[in-house]
Amino acid sequence: LNKQQQNRLQEKFDLLHPADIAYILESLPLDQRQIAWDAIKIDDDGHVLLEVSDAVRQTLISSMEAEEIVNAAGKLNTDEIADLAADLPKRAMLKILRSLNNKERKHLNDILSYQENQVGSRMDLGMIVIQDDLNLKAVAAYIRKLGKLPKHTDKFFVVDQHGIVKGILPIHRLLTHLPVQSVADVMISDFVHFQAGQEIAEASRAFERYDLISAPVVDSDGRLQGRLCVDSIVDFIRDKTDEDMLAKVGVSEEEDLFSSVWKSAKNRWGWLLINIATAFVSTRIIGLFEDVILQLVALASLMPIIAATGGNTGNQTSILIIRSLALGQITPVNKRRLIKKELTLAALNGTLIGFLVGFLVWLLYRDLALAAVMAMAMFINLIVAVSVGLAIPLLRYKFGKDPAIGTSVMLTSITDSMGFFIFLGLASLFLIHRV
Amino acid sequence: LNKQQQNRLQEKFDLLHPADIAYILESLPLDQRQIAWDAIKIDDDGHVLLEVSDAVRQTLISSMEAEEIVNAAGKLNTDEIADLAADLPKRAMLKILRSLNNKERKHLNDILSYQENQVGSRMDLGMIVIQDDLNLKAVAAYIRKLGKLPKHTDKFFVVDQHGIVKGILPIHRLLTHLPVQSVADVMISDFVHFQAGQEIAEASRAFERYDLISAPVVDSDGRLQGRLCVDSIVDFIRDKTDEDMLAKVGVSEEEDLFSSVWKSAKNRWGWLLINIATAFVSTRIIGLFEDVILQLVALASLMPIIAATGGNTGNQTSILIIRSLALGQITPVNKRRLIKKELTLAALNGTLIGFLVGFLVWLLYRDLALAAVMAMAMFINLIVAVSVGLAIPLLRYKFGKDPAIGTSVMLTSITDSMGFFIFLGLASLFLIHRV
Repeated sequence: LNKQQQNRLQEKFDLLHPADIAYILESLPLDQRQIAWDAIKIDDDGHVLLEVSDAVRQTLISSMEAEEIVNAAGKLNTDEIADLAADLPKRAMLKILRSLNNKERKHLNDILSYQENQVGSRMDLGMIVIQDDLNLKAVAAYIRKLGKLPKHTDKFFVVDQHGIVKGILPIHRLLTHLPVQSVADVMISDFVHFQAGQEIAEASRAFERYDLISAPVVDSDGRLQGRLCVDSIVDFIRDKTDEDMLAKVGVSEEEDLFSSVWKSAKNRWGWLLINIATAFVSTRIIGLFEDVILQLVALASLMPIIAATGGNTGNQTSILIIRSLALGQITPVNKRRLIKKELTLAALNGTLIGFLVGFLVWLLYRDLALAAVMAMAMFINLIVAVSVGLAIPLLRYKFGKDPAIGTSVMLTSITDSMGFFIFLGLASLFLIHRV
Repeated sequence: LNKQQQNRLQEKFDLLHPADIAYILESLPLDQRQIAWDAIKIDDDGHVLLEVSDAVRQTLISSMEAEEIVNAAGKLNTDEIADLAADLPKRAMLKILRSLNNKERKHLNDILSYQENQVGSRMDLGMIVIQDDLNLKAVAAYIRKLGKLPKHTDKFFVVDQHGIVKGILPIHRLLTHLPVQSVADVMISDFVHFQAGQEIAEASRAFERYDLISAPVVDSDGRLQGRLCVDSIVDFIRDKTDEDMLAKVGVSEEEDLFSSVWKSAKNRWGWLLINIATAFVSTRIIGLFEDVILQLVALASLMPIIAATGGNTGNQTSILIIRSLALGQITPVNKRRLIKKELTLAALNGTLIGFLVGFLVWLLYRDLALAAVMAMAMFINLIVAVSVGLAIPLLRYKFGKDPAIGTSVMLTSITDSMGFFIFLGLASLFLIHRV
């Protein structure tokens, strides 16, 4: 790229929304990404960094000088800096902290003190706060003086002189009510609000249920700390489902499409190795029955059916449980009914599918005893699979762990090895003394 | 429940938001749900029906008379009736259509004419439309006369005399600009809008990227048809991820926690049967090699390792591809680089994991030839698994099918049977003439 091309590229980027620039950067291979990134004006850097995925952000930041990072952060709000903080080098972060005034530094430290799953970590400070003793005319004058409102301002937050949130004033009430009316008369005092320490998942359910755009975040005394907006909720839902999906196959974190092969490989080893380890358990269980297999080699052929149905059935149950847990639908009373229902279903499916598979085995091998053992194994296997599919997420949830993470790998490894044990064990009990 | 209890229940429900009533109904077993449903005032019925999940909605509607349904629908907007339409009995739907005026009936038919994945099917009609030749004072007077604004009104839509959308007027500009200014001067004319026939997934990406609250929906001539709001987008994201997750284990539709065992069983048979069918393919492939297994029974024990690693690796690749496709990150140029990267990664992992597993097999059986066959099978198996993990979602996407649906089951069945074939095939080539 020569100077002229670089200038033309920069002109094009100047016209784009930071989110669009982020999208372009993410779709570019590393070398081209670097050229494009260098062409972007210092002014936009911070906002683009906010929009790219975590993996791509790291590649961009690693090519920046500490000075450049501090400059980029200078254009951001404290809540936006908080979003970047985890990916910034320590030295740059210290410089940024020094560049802030006392109030901003306190805000930043406040937000950083919350964990990723808490409302506080996703709140922003772009709220319009008004006192409850004003009238609407004074509020309108204040808004006119501000000239510009932060994004997503659908309501103002009304506080008393101690900073305690007393109500919300939807912006359109300024238009539909008389200017002489007082804020306290026009505001809504029965409103949804969140504690900064509350789980973000809970807040997300409330946003979905009541179709919220923004809501106040308060501390334990009811003092206004910040606001939570629907865009953070959409990001949270997206992050969470992405994370669950990737975790299910053991990809530890988001991958940059163009990261090095070596880096991607390491990202995927974790559960590949766990999978191999659990498969070796299955191997050893089958190993116990090698003499049985030698006497009736059809057993080796039939093993995949046991593994497939056990894994599938267990995963069906566990996914429905994980979903119900996420929706907050499982109460202690419900739980008992649910367990009973799933087990009844397992018995029903075990009987039907046991008969079906038994019949198919009879067609293949014309061996009635083998078919009966297969049917019996299928029945027991489905009961075990459903029990495990119930137990893993419910227990993980009970002990405060995320039921979505790890359940699938654990479940499949248990249903596989139990399935082989049940099938080969029954075979050695009922089929072998015939030989 | 006696009359007095029923009255007390009704009083409690009167104080609740329809979404909260929906949540309670979903968490109640069928008999109790029916009692609670009967206690809810006719007035609220429609809004509660909108909030419950599809599965639960069917149980509630099935207990209602056609008259009751028509009454409930009478309190809803046409776009809300459209959301219910799929679940309403034909007779009730005809009565509802007859109860609407011509304009409403046209609106309802318009919305129903779009497919579920199109923007038009999720648009609503709660927009405030203003002419571009007004001034802000006239707009303010109009809003004051309306008295109440529809939910999620963050902007007004500006149209010319032909109904063509010319711009958007953010609500706060009424407060921050002078009343004498004209709408045409104050409005934003470079704004995000959607075609009614556009894919909702695309609109959802735009909402996330630009942090939108609402946006105009237009026809091919640019005429305003309705608006799309962030709550519909949140619902869409949730529906889509739920559907993907359930589809992955072959649960055909959302389940009512308390539906009958028989209904649930049928809901889960589809892929359980497909799984059994594909497992029988594996069975037949292993069956081809039964004489090989009889000569070296360790092969039977080692088969699960092949299946586990192939399935896991293939799924990792396919999920990353599905995610990149959903984010719109895959271009023709990218695609080639991506395929090359994933295959290089497969070769790297195949070598490393092949050596590791080969070594473990040697530890178990002290058979160098068997260990070498295992390592070789692992290498080829990972290359095949990644190729299949690339091919299935990319081909499904190319032919206009949702890459997320069905990929996992197809992939696992192919990697299983190919894995067994590769492993046992290599064994019969290299190990058997030793015996």
